Amino acid sequence: MKASKESNNPVDPRVAVIDKRLKNVKRVIAISSGKGGVGKSLFASVLAMHLNRKGFLVGLFDADFTSPSTHRILGVKNFEIREEKGILPVPFYGLKYMSIVAFSKEKALPLRGADVSNALIELFSAILWGNLDYLIVDMPPGIGDVTLDIIRLVKKIEFLIVTTPSVLAFETVEKLLALLKELKVPVIGVVENMKIKESSFIKKKVAELGTSFLGDVPFDSEVENALGDVEALLRTVFAQKLAEFVPRIISRDS
Amino acid sequence: MKASKESNNPVDPRVAVIDKRLKNVKRVIAISSGKGGVGKSLFASVLAMHLNRKGFLVGLFDADFTSPSTHRILGVKNFEIREEKGILPVPFYGLKYMSIVAFSKEKALPLRGADVSNALIELFSAILWGNLDYLIVDMPPGIGDVTLDIIRLVKKIEFLIVTTPSVLAFETVEKLLALLKELKVPVIGVVENMKIKESSFIKKKVAELGTSFLGDVPFDSEVENALGDVEALLRTVFAQKLAEFVPRIISRDS
Repeated sequence: MKASKESNNPVDPRVAVIDKRLKNVKRVIAISSGKGGVGKSLFASVLAMHLNRKGFLVGLFDADFTSPSTHRILGVKNFEIREEKGILPVPFYGLKYMSIVAFSKEKALPLRGADVSNALIELFSAILWGNLDYLIVDMPPGIGDVTLDIIRLVKKIEFLIVTTPSVLAFETVEKLLALLKELKVPVIGVVENMKIKESSFIKKKVAELGTSFLGDVPFDSEVENALGDVEALLRTVFAQKLAEFVPRIISRDS
Repeated sequence: MKASKESNNPVDPRVAVIDKRLKNVKRVIAISSGKGGVGKSLFASVLAMHLNRKGFLVGLFDADFTSPSTHRILGVKNFEIREEKGILPVPFYGLKYMSIVAFSKEKALPLRGADVSNALIELFSAILWGNLDYLIVDMPPGIGDVTLDIIRLVKKIEFLIVTTPSVLAFETVEKLLALLKELKVPVIGVVENMKIKESSFIKKKVAELGTSFLGDVPFDSEVENALGDVEALLRTVFAQKLAEFVPRIISRDS
């Protein structure tokens, strides 16, 4: 099955709706990974906060429908949904925030891929992001329905990939990068998270693939204690190290 | 959407085919997790080897189609597929082994959930497992299409869940356990992997949910070096600790 950026219907009306919703969003950055458990949601959450603190208008959309974590990471509690010709994202510490948990009330969502995809598109089509400099999207791991749909529906999407030092994690990253290359999706770069030992394995592999290596972040056991507390989270070594990547991400602004 | 163990078609002919294929397989154990990156594939691989070394007839099926790892973990290289009224699993160190990589040649599989599901069912329907005491199935993480299909198609399925100490990992485990309870799927228990700090948080939460806590396994940085080498893998602290769980898993035999 050859992947293509176009949907099976050459003209998918939902593409137009989402285009309109994102009209005043300058950049949409999908934080993705090959496998799960590499710190992707944490990265997305903290990146959004860093950009926010630098004075940018930032949205954070948790698109990991079956395993949403960002609300827990940041400590988002008030999910009062207000609708006004669309769904207004929840204001949180200066971010505009949205996640499926606003609707699912933390119940299990044993959704089949096609259903997740539809639910995502429905939600994404309804959110009024307004004016944003950055919309950070926390993706589910891997190359499944949501990844394929976001690529199809959001023309201005860019990807930033999080991996760990493990060769197992990086293998799926290679496949993801190959797919993104084939679909001509811009990749900001790869971040190596949870680093424990000195090694340039990932850095070299990323260079071989012609992708930008943004840097590495050490494993930080204090993150677990900081979950749910934005200020504590931003004081962790993880967050401080991540702050070093922000200029490299911003510098892509045309 | 209320989950149900029956498919939408009350009589799915593929259930009968798979039933027949598994006729002489005593126990089918799905190694599952809420989120990815918790060491599920590693656990499945090493568990299969331990059971094998205890003299049982063991099969290992890597059902994590978009992110297969077990072949890398164990170092399975020869994927010569032999067909004889079905697909014969690949013999490996005494195991009967099968993975999508035998067919996909390590290319990216950007499959939509429905396609993964169909591919899984096709493959599962074709494999001739023969006589086995244990068929260990390495599941994709979470509660998506493959999980729902395995439950639907394999009547004798039991689940063993791997988590890490992180509250983020365990949240999705709670949802998975709730779903399995609703679908009346037997759960052997929960293993807490990659433990770094002393804590009984997961043990207590598992007890609260009325599920068996099988034990914890420390984070073992030597595993990465042992990947692809069965003997080295079985010498790791991880593997030695895992061996302690085997009697508890075996003891479920009726």
